[in-house]
Amino acid sequence: MVEIAVMGYGTVGSGVVEVLDKHADSIAGRAKEQIRVKYILDLRDFPGSPYERSFTKSFDAILNDPDVHIVVEVMGGLHPAFDYVKKCLENGKSVVTSNKELVAAKGAELLELAQKNNLNFLFEASVGGGIPIIRPISQCLAANDVVEIAGILNGTTNFILTKMIREKTTFDDTLALAQKLGYAERNPAADVEGMDACRKICILASLAYGKHVYPEQVHTEGISQIRLEDVEYADVWGGVIKLIGQVKMMDSGKIQVIVCPMFLSRDSQLANVDDVFNGILVRGDSTGDVVFYGKGAGKFPTASAVVADVIDCVKHFKARKYLYWDEGSPDYVEDYLENHVAMYVRAVTEDETLAFKNIENQLGAVDRLTRKGSKPGEIAFVTKKSPEKEIRKALEALSGLGVQIQNTIRIGEV
Amino acid sequence: MVEIAVMGYGTVGSGVVEVLDKHADSIAGRAKEQIRVKYILDLRDFPGSPYERSFTKSFDAILNDPDVHIVVEVMGGLHPAFDYVKKCLENGKSVVTSNKELVAAKGAELLELAQKNNLNFLFEASVGGGIPIIRPISQCLAANDVVEIAGILNGTTNFILTKMIREKTTFDDTLALAQKLGYAERNPAADVEGMDACRKICILASLAYGKHVYPEQVHTEGISQIRLEDVEYADVWGGVIKLIGQVKMMDSGKIQVIVCPMFLSRDSQLANVDDVFNGILVRGDSTGDVVFYGKGAGKFPTASAVVADVIDCVKHFKARKYLYWDEGSPDYVEDYLENHVAMYVRAVTEDETLAFKNIENQLGAVDRLTRKGSKPGEIAFVTKKSPEKEIRKALEALSGLGVQIQNTIRIGEV
Repeated sequence: MVEIAVMGYGTVGSGVVEVLDKHADSIAGRAKEQIRVKYILDLRDFPGSPYERSFTKSFDAILNDPDVHIVVEVMGGLHPAFDYVKKCLENGKSVVTSNKELVAAKGAELLELAQKNNLNFLFEASVGGGIPIIRPISQCLAANDVVEIAGILNGTTNFILTKMIREKTTFDDTLALAQKLGYAERNPAADVEGMDACRKICILASLAYGKHVYPEQVHTEGISQIRLEDVEYADVWGGVIKLIGQVKMMDSGKIQVIVCPMFLSRDSQLANVDDVFNGILVRGDSTGDVVFYGKGAGKFPTASAVVADVIDCVKHFKARKYLYWDEGSPDYVEDYLENHVAMYVRAVTEDETLAFKNIENQLGAVDRLTRKGSKPGEIAFVTKKSPEKEIRKALEALSGLGVQIQNTIRIGEV
Repeated sequence: MVEIAVMGYGTVGSGVVEVLDKHADSIAGRAKEQIRVKYILDLRDFPGSPYERSFTKSFDAILNDPDVHIVVEVMGGLHPAFDYVKKCLENGKSVVTSNKELVAAKGAELLELAQKNNLNFLFEASVGGGIPIIRPISQCLAANDVVEIAGILNGTTNFILTKMIREKTTFDDTLALAQKLGYAERNPAADVEGMDACRKICILASLAYGKHVYPEQVHTEGISQIRLEDVEYADVWGGVIKLIGQVKMMDSGKIQVIVCPMFLSRDSQLANVDDVFNGILVRGDSTGDVVFYGKGAGKFPTASAVVADVIDCVKHFKARKYLYWDEGSPDYVEDYLENHVAMYVRAVTEDETLAFKNIENQLGAVDRLTRKGSKPGEIAFVTKKSPEKEIRKALEALSGLGVQIQNTIRIGEV
């Protein structure tokens, strides 16, 4: 019998307790031990819950109970989760978490602490919900150099973009719908502004290349600036707009990493990942492209990933799982303005002919895009691939030449 | 230092040796041991090979060397592979194989032998090449009941079907092209007649439901009967033809399992898996649908999966990996004629009006399909969902009523 504690009884936490209960026999069979939830930590009361006797409001009760060997942290947020997890690892308890904010900010530190104390710190559920991704990347790493990872990592924004593309509803209307359906939170900023995707690409990048990438090192743009005009120009261009998190290793030993909306060609393996689904492409030098696809969030998908980690912990009490990366460094991430990229640009002008003369003067030849029902003076084009800083400089110059830039979206190569 | 032997120096075997060599440092880092290929078993000579000193023609040299703890079997075929693998497991050596024929025929027996001797028998590379699939299914099992698995499991046939759909070339011409490009073997029967896909769905079904499914228990149809007419009717119907291996658990405790071409709706998550790619959908009761996509074959994808298993073996010398299923039984697989299915039917008749009167008499209402350029007397329709044996009986009766059946293809629900 292994006794565990679950910290946080929200959506994921209650799912974990339920999955452990419902699948108790098969879990015991695979873990070769019964697993019992001794404590559930939550500040709220849950009168009438079948698990009522397990609830506690005291973290110390968990920390000081020598019978608890594994602690599941599904509270979310950085504080007090970080403090609690750290104390658990310092006190001989392995930790399983679904908390991407925690892993993205403190992964290297917690992995080191776990290693020092010969404990496990596992976080399969932090990226891709129920899609197995941390483990496959970790396992395929040994026989592969990871060339690149690119993914649709946030279901809420993918739902919004899919609706905008299919039903031509505006961003604001679609966000309101997503909130009504429970796909977006009342404060949707973490999803919509790309922070959630940023944390996930940080975790994948850290794992793939063995060195921590911190969220503040990643240039991150969300989808709140996307207009229906952009969706239509993407269609004309031959693709769709997706919010992509992407990381590549450069020859210099630095990495390129970014989170932003991109135009993806319809041929892209990620172009058909729609609605609340996530899709993650891992390009290895031996395996080639492998894509993982599924629901990236939700109570039971996420809970089942947490439970799989718990079982792994039980099976590996003596043999630690190999998950590790080093602390990061300030110069590890290439300035995104140095990246070579082609750019979609939408602008308004009073004199189209003159505008394109000036545009080609500044940027060289561009591919013009036209759409039905465009507004007077509206123009759109795609630049050649160049260092982004040069494109930005040219666009700035153009605003002094009667070309008012409305939006820019990078052309993805995925 | 761990010493291993590689049996078979064909495409996969030479890839394994090369990957172990090229990624030696990262492999040693992850396995926490150097891995050295002490023997390569092959009856041929490879003069000038950088690994020349490792070659042997004697299986006994490997079997009797107490320093060899892990044997990689990548010879393919059932004999002598089965005999060799069995002897290795009886003599204290863990085995890693990519041999789907071996695992599909003898998996339960070899897994039991491995368990008895506290050894590993691993076969990630036997399904999906470089796509991680055995391990994720095995790990997601604990917290999930697997509702269904369906997959495009054979790259050669998928390449042929994709070409037929896109370029309207006939089966025979496309097969010849696939052979020319090296995607199909000179004797293409195992691929084209569905045997390869059958072995793979047997392995996945055995793993998912814990009981061996043998290839001879699985109704298997290949793609050699597919005509361009069928491809066009699938398009009219709103989908594509794919060779699908599928398994589902029934309430009765029996499984439904089949390998055959199916009409898949364009909305299916497998409809866009094209060319030589494989796609495998795993539906869990907690995770929902998870899809794995990538190249299902090829030297380096397969080799990297083999090497990942070797590393796992090294890390788990003392703690066995949990892979296991029981021997099967003759009554475990439902007769495919009992399955409820909708069926596409193409036929010829001399009197269309009378034919459809007879068809609806026999089968109830059907959905008629028409295509441009159809031949005189050619008809096609899709039946309602019914037990397959009733459909077959009705079709037989129709052939006595002036309706000559040319082809039938099941409508997939994936």
